[in-house]
Amino acid sequence: MTKWPTAGLGFGGDYNPEQWSPDVWDEDVRLMTEAGVNIVTLGVFSWGALEVADGVFEWAWLDRVIDLLHRNGISVDLATPIASPPAWLHAAHPGILPVNADMTQRRPGARDGWCANSATFRRYALRMTKELARRYAAHPAVVLWHVGNELGGGNGRCYCDESVTAFRAWLRERYGSLDNLNRAWGTAFWGLYLTDWSHVPAPRGGETHNPALMLDYDRFCSDSLLEHFRAEHVVIREFAPTTPITTNFMVGPHQDVVDYPHWADHVDVVANDHYTNPSDPLSAQDIAFCADRVRGMTPGRGPWLLMEHSVSAHAWYPVNRAKAPRELIRDSLGHIARGADGALFFQWRASLRGAEQFLQGMVPHAGPDSKIGREVRELGAVLARLADVRGSTVERARVAVLFDNEAGWAFSRGLKPHKGLGYGDEPRAWHRALWTRNVLADVVSPWADLSTYDLVIVPTLFLVHDECAARVASVAQRGGVVVVTWMSGIVDPENAVRPGGYPAAFRDLLGVRSEEFFPLQPGERGRLDSGATFHSWSELMDVTDAEIIARYAGGAVAGGPALTCRAVGSGTAYYVSCALEPASLDEFVGQVLDDAGIEPSGGGAGLDVVRREKDRTVWVFALNHGDEDRCVTVQGVELVTGEAVDHELVVPGHEVRVVRQTR
Amino acid sequence: MTKWPTAGLGFGGDYNPEQWSPDVWDEDVRLMTEAGVNIVTLGVFSWGALEVADGVFEWAWLDRVIDLLHRNGISVDLATPIASPPAWLHAAHPGILPVNADMTQRRPGARDGWCANSATFRRYALRMTKELARRYAAHPAVVLWHVGNELGGGNGRCYCDESVTAFRAWLRERYGSLDNLNRAWGTAFWGLYLTDWSHVPAPRGGETHNPALMLDYDRFCSDSLLEHFRAEHVVIREFAPTTPITTNFMVGPHQDVVDYPHWADHVDVVANDHYTNPSDPLSAQDIAFCADRVRGMTPGRGPWLLMEHSVSAHAWYPVNRAKAPRELIRDSLGHIARGADGALFFQWRASLRGAEQFLQGMVPHAGPDSKIGREVRELGAVLARLADVRGSTVERARVAVLFDNEAGWAFSRGLKPHKGLGYGDEPRAWHRALWTRNVLADVVSPWADLSTYDLVIVPTLFLVHDECAARVASVAQRGGVVVVTWMSGIVDPENAVRPGGYPAAFRDLLGVRSEEFFPLQPGERGRLDSGATFHSWSELMDVTDAEIIARYAGGAVAGGPALTCRAVGSGTAYYVSCALEPASLDEFVGQVLDDAGIEPSGGGAGLDVVRREKDRTVWVFALNHGDEDRCVTVQGVELVTGEAVDHELVVPGHEVRVVRQTR
Amino acid sequence: MTKWPTAGLGFGGDYNPEQWSPDVWDEDVRLMTEAGVNIVTLGVFSWGALEVADGVFEWAWLDRVIDLLHRNGISVDLATPIASPPAWLHAAHPGILPVNADMTQRRPGARDGWCANSATFRRYALRMTKELARRYAAHPAVVLWHVGNELGGGNGRCYCDESVTAFRAWLRERYGSLDNLNRAWGTAFWGLYLTDWSHVPAPRGGETHNPALMLDYDRFCSDSLLEHFRAEHVVIREFAPTTPITTNFMVGPHQDVVDYPHWADHVDVVANDHYTNPSDPLSAQDIAFCADRVRGMTPGRGPWLLMEHSVSAHAWYPVNRAKAPRELIRDSLGHIARGADGALFFQWRASLRGAEQFLQGMVPHAGPDSKIGREVRELGAVLARLADVRGSTVERARVAVLFDNEAGWAFSRGLKPHKGLGYGDEPRAWHRALWTRNVLADVVSPWADLSTYDLVIVPTLFLVHDECAARVASVAQRGGVVVVTWMSGIVDPENAVRPGGYPAAFRDLLGVRSEEFFPLQPGERGRLDSGATFHSWSELMDVTDAEIIARYAGGAVAGGPALTCRAVGSGTAYYVSCALEPASLDEFVGQVLDDAGIEPSGGGAGLDVVRREKDRTVWVFALNHGDEDRCVTVQGVELVTGEAVDHELVVPGHEVRVVRQTR
Repeated sequence: MTKWPTAGLGFGGDYNPEQWSPDVWDEDVRLMTEAGVNIVTLGVFSWGALEVADGVFEWAWLDRVIDLLHRNGISVDLATPIASPPAWLHAAHPGILPVNADMTQRRPGARDGWCANSATFRRYALRMTKELARRYAAHPAVVLWHVGNELGGGNGRCYCDESVTAFRAWLRERYGSLDNLNRAWGTAFWGLYLTDWSHVPAPRGGETHNPALMLDYDRFCSDSLLEHFRAEHVVIREFAPTTPITTNFMVGPHQDVVDYPHWADHVDVVANDHYTNPSDPLSAQDIAFCADRVRGMTPGRGPWLLMEHSVSAHAWYPVNRAKAPRELIRDSLGHIARGADGALFFQWRASLRGAEQFLQGMVPHAGPDSKIGREVRELGAVLARLADVRGSTVERARVAVLFDNEAGWAFSRGLKPHKGLGYGDEPRAWHRALWTRNVLADVVSPWADLSTYDLVIVPTLFLVHDECAARVASVAQRGGVVVVTWMSGIVDPENAVRPGGYPAAFRDLLGVRSEEFFPLQPGERGRLDSGATFHSWSELMDVTDAEIIARYAGGAVAGGPALTCRAVGSGTAYYVSCALEPASLDEFVGQVLDDAGIEPSGGGAGLDVVRREKDRTVWVFALNHGDEDRCVTVQGVELVTGEAVDHELVVPGHEVRVVRQTR
Repeated sequence: MTKWPTAGLGFGGDYNPEQWSPDVWDEDVRLMTEAGVNIVTLGVFSWGALEVADGVFEWAWLDRVIDLLHRNGISVDLATPIASPPAWLHAAHPGILPVNADMTQRRPGARDGWCANSATFRRYALRMTKELARRYAAHPAVVLWHVGNELGGGNGRCYCDESVTAFRAWLRERYGSLDNLNRAWGTAFWGLYLTDWSHVPAPRGGETHNPALMLDYDRFCSDSLLEHFRAEHVVIREFAPTTPITTNFMVGPHQDVVDYPHWADHVDVVANDHYTNPSDPLSAQDIAFCADRVRGMTPGRGPWLLMEHSVSAHAWYPVNRAKAPRELIRDSLGHIARGADGALFFQWRASLRGAEQFLQGMVPHAGPDSKIGREVRELGAVLARLADVRGSTVERARVAVLFDNEAGWAFSRGLKPHKGLGYGDEPRAWHRALWTRNVLADVVSPWADLSTYDLVIVPTLFLVHDECAARVASVAQRGGVVVVTWMSGIVDPENAVRPGGYPAAFRDLLGVRSEEFFPLQPGERGRLDSGATFHSWSELMDVTDAEIIARYAGGAVAGGPALTCRAVGSGTAYYVSCALEPASLDEFVGQVLDDAGIEPSGGGAGLDVVRREKDRTVWVFALNHGDEDRCVTVQGVELVTGEAVDHELVVPGHEVRVVRQTR
Repeated sequence: MTKWPTAGLGFGGDYNPEQWSPDVWDEDVRLMTEAGVNIVTLGVFSWGALEVADGVFEWAWLDRVIDLLHRNGISVDLATPIASPPAWLHAAHPGILPVNADMTQRRPGARDGWCANSATFRRYALRMTKELARRYAAHPAVVLWHVGNELGGGNGRCYCDESVTAFRAWLRERYGSLDNLNRAWGTAFWGLYLTDWSHVPAPRGGETHNPALMLDYDRFCSDSLLEHFRAEHVVIREFAPTTPITTNFMVGPHQDVVDYPHWADHVDVVANDHYTNPSDPLSAQDIAFCADRVRGMTPGRGPWLLMEHSVSAHAWYPVNRAKAPRELIRDSLGHIARGADGALFFQWRASLRGAEQFLQGMVPHAGPDSKIGREVRELGAVLARLADVRGSTVERARVAVLFDNEAGWAFSRGLKPHKGLGYGDEPRAWHRALWTRNVLADVVSPWADLSTYDLVIVPTLFLVHDECAARVASVAQRGGVVVVTWMSGIVDPENAVRPGGYPAAFRDLLGVRSEEFFPLQPGERGRLDSGATFHSWSELMDVTDAEIIARYAGGAVAGGPALTCRAVGSGTAYYVSCALEPASLDEFVGQVLDDAGIEPSGGGAGLDVVRREKDRTVWVFALNHGDEDRCVTVQGVELVTGEAVDHELVVPGHEVRVVRQTR
């Protein structure tokens, strides 16, 4: 029904003209044109500027801005401005502000000051959206709708009474009866016998709550925010029958605040915000991992939109290093190489005032004549030369890494064998080993179709459905390779431990039975008899029907199996019972790739090569994240420099090259 | 009046059949019988399963479980199920939930959701207890009553208005008049002149409260919980005239949440819960220290019951390592060697659901065919062979270490010279030096009779009564050896500094006068001219009548006395003004033991040997906490292996041996 | 109008006789006389002892104490006892207790339990003050009035509704209209469009508030407390037409809780409390820095009073080391050398009870026969010999270091490029480099007259007015040397970023333009091509009209300018774009001093020499903070030892010498 919002690749950013006087608007549009900007996001924080009092709307300024942009050929991604309810709304209805787990209520003055379960907020928000859609849906500049902003970013969990009432209704729908709920949650433990729906607690306060309750609250909160999105979608669709409607996800290296893979079916374009962490020495791999995650949740692995990233320094980290020269360009093209059909920034012009005054913009504090200004213009020019990439798909990945928000939520809350672990750490560690070897992976949900993959990695998939376990087993049955790690298959969807030995859901597939966990203290390291080293985790296990590849070489479990391998059907299933350190993990991945018959798709040490394909055209993206020049064997036309490449392409340190080939 | 609940040594654990279907109950009883279980604790979290609505009781399931156990020869320790008020009670009376110091109220959903000063809670709890006692007091399976669970574990301090009103009444009783209170607390400081009992503050909020107020609040809270225990005791005793009634203490290496040595007079059996800390490399010594503490507070140093410990991994630590092979057996017998007449676990069958789903059970997640299952059965068999040990006493200790909860509370709260110190650290350090040399010590209260000890150690006994100081002095007078350390005798029972120079209460005994404290920064280390090293603490002091053993070798107090010794009567009194590091402390303890004429009671490096005695029989427990085999000279029958020992017993690494001798 | 309260230098401390029985008062006065005490502060915590019930006053005990002191020639600094409202006032009006940012209300039981914006508190406080002034203003012993205690120390920010209403009125006064406020705060960002004064938020809760709002709240809170001081001043002045009235500041090494340089115009005597930090290895320089700050805010750089410091151990630090021998004397004279005309302590006699029971006194716990007692008496004797110093001024400093509370507040709150930095760190680092070379500096406010300085250092002056920037530029124009560091001149007084490149306010003066910040991670270090090293900060910058002294030698900004220098008028302006490590900073300061033609004023390595001057007399203070003896060339009479000095004075390690010379 809907079409991609831009003709070529999208390029632009959030534009907040309300912060500037109209004379600056003219300069802005001139600079946008110079930079090749073709789309900007308007209105994210404009509620108070549009509805100046309850039911009193002022459109003149926005009319003028949209017309100005349109006259200059710049399209608009129009946001419903619900991220920041106006001060008058908070004053009239303070109850819409979210309540924290400790039962303190949030205060006006920042953003995200609303509860997704507030009927009052819903009423005001939908009225605002309706008036906005009514006025602008037909405007030819408006090519995309943008519901709210990073939904759940600051209001992902609300514990107000209205939310708890909605939670109880949600539970009633899910469980049907209190008997079912009592059984599923195991309320006999600690004597929480529920005899009335109105007694069902929320995970409020500092209490040590039931893990099933906590997981259900996470699910409920995701559903509440999705319901808000869908309500806005209906309102907009009434006026805009074909324009795509989206909202910006925040897919990062750990479990998401809401369950995006389930949301993806409800947006017309999957859009993501991604910010690199200046203290992460591997931010390029973080980009690859997150982009592989977003692609993995995009229906048909089709194109998605990078809705926000940063030109340089962020403002929210403890230490906000600016980006090094060329990092801006490399980061943007890193997303595009992995499936983004546009690269937008937050924000166009850096603010001088307000909370994020030190977050740089495409027009930075220093002005357009600056490192940032020059790289923005250069990027715009490159993207124009890559216009045809739009609509192409990323080459088929032969490897899948399973990643699940419910597993992450369950893994990260409550009393656990090791409370210092982050859910995304192990998936990202396995992805890094693949990325280092230039092997492309899709990071997909447990319910994804795994039938096309030659290698499936299941890292710390704590919670697993029987269906997923069966699907993983079938990969090996049909000749593929499966790797399952520690802390996988431990609990079922009710967050109840699967009995009989770990990793219960995969025990038969792997031919192992683990009895007990021996997590390591922070800083502690262990060793296998193969020489491999590990951190964080080890297990007391035995094999029932598997070959032992390596044994523990010390500690309480010395002599016990650590890494195992089992022939399954025409394939293989590995179990990794400890958290291998990077060098050992890299080596192990090398063996597994050999086993699966997978070769790197190009590049070599330090060069990240990914292909995008459309019909008979292939674009080879080569990103050099290191200091040294790197080479890749490829033929075609290099689109950044415009030069023909006969055989070998040299990619200078820190640079990106894109070669167009015809098959 | 009451008798020990089991014929031989108690063996079993908490049993929560409500979490399982009745078909599992049959398997449970079969496995219990196989393992030699003779007692289980029932009902701890069963309130909601027994009183399903206000005043509506359902007994059928519990009748059935008790009968099933009884038919199979397993006794019952029946708990009053007040640890978790039912959801309907919280819904009807949310005011019974405790209020934290920051004035947030606790939330339903976990355990311990009640205030000991709530009249409403008291009414409901005593009705439940009465109905339970009425129904089961006469049942032959019920051999022990168990009031609540770890009283004060989650509700040790409540700051609700009802509690504060009770606190004021408690103070009125204690002080008689506001004039006395103003004087004792020194309210002139910071101008807190109290003119009305209703103005007396509680230590609420983040304020820097008066230290005397804080200590009195600690005392009051202990008394409130004890009063609850005693009220339940009265109700049960009405129906069960001779069955022993207890509650499970939580005696650990630091000051307790309530003042157990004072509670010990009110329970019919002293029972303790003890969990090793997986990050503690000396958990065997922790067990010894805590067991020596429990024995020290048991009237007549008589037997006590280990009511809970863990088969393996706990759930509440940041990193919950499972126990190494043999650790389960060694830990249990470690408690029994030091006076426990039973070793019970939490819990029988590991839960799959609920907050503690990762705390293992005697039937672990992996099932009975597992390391845990095998060691549980082996332990049961060993305990059966040790049945006669029941009722024996631990050999007389020649050393006493003073330990006091009031001293610990005063030491650990408020503005202090060094706020990073834990009260139990120094007592445990001295105990460790004794334990390493296999010298048995009683860890006793300051009001204990010290007349039988040859060596009395007074480590950081911050608060001290005149009577205690006199009792310590008399030890030296009659020829014993006394060691007093820094931060002892500093304040009186009103938590007021004793003037005239530190350690005031012991100044005359020691012949020293300390003027000022020079605590060290974390990580800082100091040295004495004897080569000894210290951490955390040093002092500027002088001797008035003592020999200087070592002087400070650097820093602001260089040249000043550090360790001193004074001949007192026919004995000796040492003062240690700094916190000696382990090696230096060990060496110093060696000298002191020589001085006191105390030899190790057996064993040697790495072997922990303790004797239990009854009439003419002696059981020699030898615990090997190391990897290497160790020997001890002993004759008799070894009860674990069943072999006779002529002269030398070899105890393999990680194992325990128990030799029965006849004197 | 007012005159200095003591004939010679002030010597004494806080005296709290309410904590002691009258027989102790007689001993106190005897010991004071022995020690040479000439002034004590009375009444700080006496409200409840004076107004024993609402409107019921009891003066007898205070009459007696003042008369006793007067008879013994000891003057009184009489405090209005508002630091601790009596318990009956809190009970009757709990609303006067401050509310924290998280909206929890403070609790009775400690001090500072009042909100400066509470009309109720103001009424009670002024009545108490009026009654006190009425009774004692004419008493000949009362030579100084002391309003409250460390105003704002515990109640510097209150977020109660009454405060927020006052804040809105304050804003209305400041901005005139909401349009102005919306513009100044940039409320368009995050959509905080204010349409009604009653909607203006306070920086409550954990929200990420607007930085301009936060800064204005800091300013408002300072003004509220000042308004309270001024209201009390009016009341006292009515009865005491000529007695000086003061309050004790808390000037330390970082921004103050209230804006003291602005308060200084409103007190008759500038008085400061200073406590050394036992974990600071350079506490002597901390004293110098803070004393230079206090002198810098004293009108005419005239004398000020050290109202409180400590004889030895403090009570509020995590680890409270006592002072080393001689440290007491050195610290006191360190303040006097830098302009204090008196050195008072908190407190006379160490408390045995109450929150600060471990804070030592001039009569310590060990009694007067002690290290502290002896040094107090020795100090009293030395101060008596220095009586003529009173009224002299500190020699003229040729160096100024700019320091501003508003800059510090803005620097330290909200989202910043590096959130781990303390505002005072860099000013103190530059001061330390000067102090190490024995070069005296005034630490002054940005609005100070800079016309007499040869070198002006502008360290991390984040917020700057145009007028200040112009004044700094004029220093260079007229031939002086100016050093500006990173993070200076970044925002204007509205806390809005100055655009066009950093450090915007000083860009033209320095001839540089910095585009982006590259803060370093904690523990990270960088290097310049000059060999200098730096931490915490670096920048991507270019020179527009300056000489490059050193370039970055690595990292993302390698090759870029780091240190620059520009000839301006007849002077020079340096820019330091990174945080130099101590050794590199010392070396750089050496060059800058050479450039400015400034030589050390005496001393040498390790000897701190400062002169005070009156008419033709000069007192040369020489403080030796090291272990080794040090020499200084000087002639005159040494007043500590009483010996004549011909040419060279030897100052033994840890000692102070004061030579009186005549010019």
